[in-house]
Amino acid sequence: MTARILVVGSVALDSVKTSEGEVSEVLGGSASYFSLSARQFAPVSIVGVVGRDFPRRHRELLASRGVDLSGFRELPGRTFRWSGRYGCDGNEAETLDTQLNVFADFKPKLSASQAASEAVFLANIDPELQAEVLSQMRRPSLTACDTMNYWIRSKPEALKALLSRVDVFFANEDEAKALAGQPNALRAARALSSWGPRVVVIKKGEHGALLRAAGKTYAFPAFPLETVKDPTGAGDTFAGGFMGYLACRGGLSDVGQLKRAMLYGSVMASFTVQEFSTKALEDLERGEVDRRFNDLLERLAVPYDPVLIAVN
Amino acid sequence: MTARILVVGSVALDSVKTSEGEVSEVLGGSASYFSLSARQFAPVSIVGVVGRDFPRRHRELLASRGVDLSGFRELPGRTFRWSGRYGCDGNEAETLDTQLNVFADFKPKLSASQAASEAVFLANIDPELQAEVLSQMRRPSLTACDTMNYWIRSKPEALKALLSRVDVFFANEDEAKALAGQPNALRAARALSSWGPRVVVIKKGEHGALLRAAGKTYAFPAFPLETVKDPTGAGDTFAGGFMGYLACRGGLSDVGQLKRAMLYGSVMASFTVQEFSTKALEDLERGEVDRRFNDLLERLAVPYDPVLIAVN
Repeated sequence: MTARILVVGSVALDSVKTSEGEVSEVLGGSASYFSLSARQFAPVSIVGVVGRDFPRRHRELLASRGVDLSGFRELPGRTFRWSGRYGCDGNEAETLDTQLNVFADFKPKLSASQAASEAVFLANIDPELQAEVLSQMRRPSLTACDTMNYWIRSKPEALKALLSRVDVFFANEDEAKALAGQPNALRAARALSSWGPRVVVIKKGEHGALLRAAGKTYAFPAFPLETVKDPTGAGDTFAGGFMGYLACRGGLSDVGQLKRAMLYGSVMASFTVQEFSTKALEDLERGEVDRRFNDLLERLAVPYDPVLIAVN
Repeated sequence: MTARILVVGSVALDSVKTSEGEVSEVLGGSASYFSLSARQFAPVSIVGVVGRDFPRRHRELLASRGVDLSGFRELPGRTFRWSGRYGCDGNEAETLDTQLNVFADFKPKLSASQAASEAVFLANIDPELQAEVLSQMRRPSLTACDTMNYWIRSKPEALKALLSRVDVFFANEDEAKALAGQPNALRAARALSSWGPRVVVIKKGEHGALLRAAGKTYAFPAFPLETVKDPTGAGDTFAGGFMGYLACRGGLSDVGQLKRAMLYGSVMASFTVQEFSTKALEDLERGEVDRRFNDLLERLAVPYDPVLIAVN
């Protein structure tokens, strides 16, 4: 049976400027990207909060794509807003403005049904809140969290404690190095693994991602794209593909499944960055996802050399 | 029959400082790294020049490892010297000093036997000289060149003309972008391919390398290393592994062979960067090379999901 996934995180209105254009007050937030990605593989529920100004069309969009919004609260006040821009190298966002608004008082309280979800993704929020949500879960079989530099600087101990309790930790390369205090992504992956998570995923944007599992590190390239319109949400989309695939197929202890989950993460992220906001995810069909997955698999596949095999 | 490889390039004395230490006047130069890498797979000859001060032990080292030095000239004067250092991110060298010395007047003149080599690697020298060497070759079946930013800025047209005449072009990511005038490595690979070479290889250091061949781009990760002592020579070592494997096994038109050549390039480069200078290549045995190749192959291999296959 496919596990149900709960995602706890932000739903936001983003304003973004990249070398390819500019958008204002579009759908954003980690929970939006994650859920629109993971829904390709498994049922998803969002636990999140928006303000009264949250456009009805965004809510309808999520609902019409099968995302369960029973944990979606609308409070008096304004929705979380983020604005940022990307330089020429395109990987790292410069935050221009953050207005937490109703998100400032986000204290997720799970319903009995939400707490019974088999899988949970704790998107980037205060690690103490992430831990509190985790404690509300009944008996999840797949738990994961993400974080950001802000929490690494301000609450490293809470984060470290959280890592000892989750199955999967997702981090960007710079975040992983900073948190682990290591100059190299591979050493960071090893160090973070030693803190408890069975799986560590380090995301490197256009350079792909690292998987640390079962005492070994595996590197995978990103799906090759000649044009990136907007990198916003790539990491949460990656997590959605990774978690969605595992929720659907299981296998945290099967490295083959984890590798496929990495490729599904890359594939989903590659769609997101081809358009602004969640545009590319909204009408994406599973057939397209699998075609790109197979394309990536074929590019990566290195056939054995019959002569080398004969020699060895 | 295994093709003989001719490499035309620098033999130098390097002084290098990295976060892992410092060395002075050690064996360096593109031809040194290339030949000590390629010799694992095929017979290699160096065409190069050194000064009277070139230490006998370096010459003896190359000769004892089977590198043919009949095209190695010793001239009155000093050997080419390069000194540089690497910052914390470790990928890009900062050149502190370059003394061309006898290398300034390097005008390679091939013997009949050298001109008859089946494969040639034109390491980073003036593209006009590279073209002149290529014209001296009788009927090579595998030709390749590398370059650097200096020539991209000073002689872009000569370089472009050269590219239309070689089978394989190797470049670092920044060089490829600069030469192609493209902001993205994938677009650069496509543009450079359109200038003529059948194969374009873009090296991205710790982030792996791109292969452009047969109208498609393939991305491969680097062999994962937790410690890099000295990145000097990684690119020429990569080229040595790539060219060596192809010289030994053929198959410029076989994408499977090209992919394996990429992995052998990565594997050879991973040895080089683990020690200063050519140290790690000197006593390296082919069995160790193949073991690391198989390790990389195994890390990359993504098994098919039986359920997905049944569904599709």
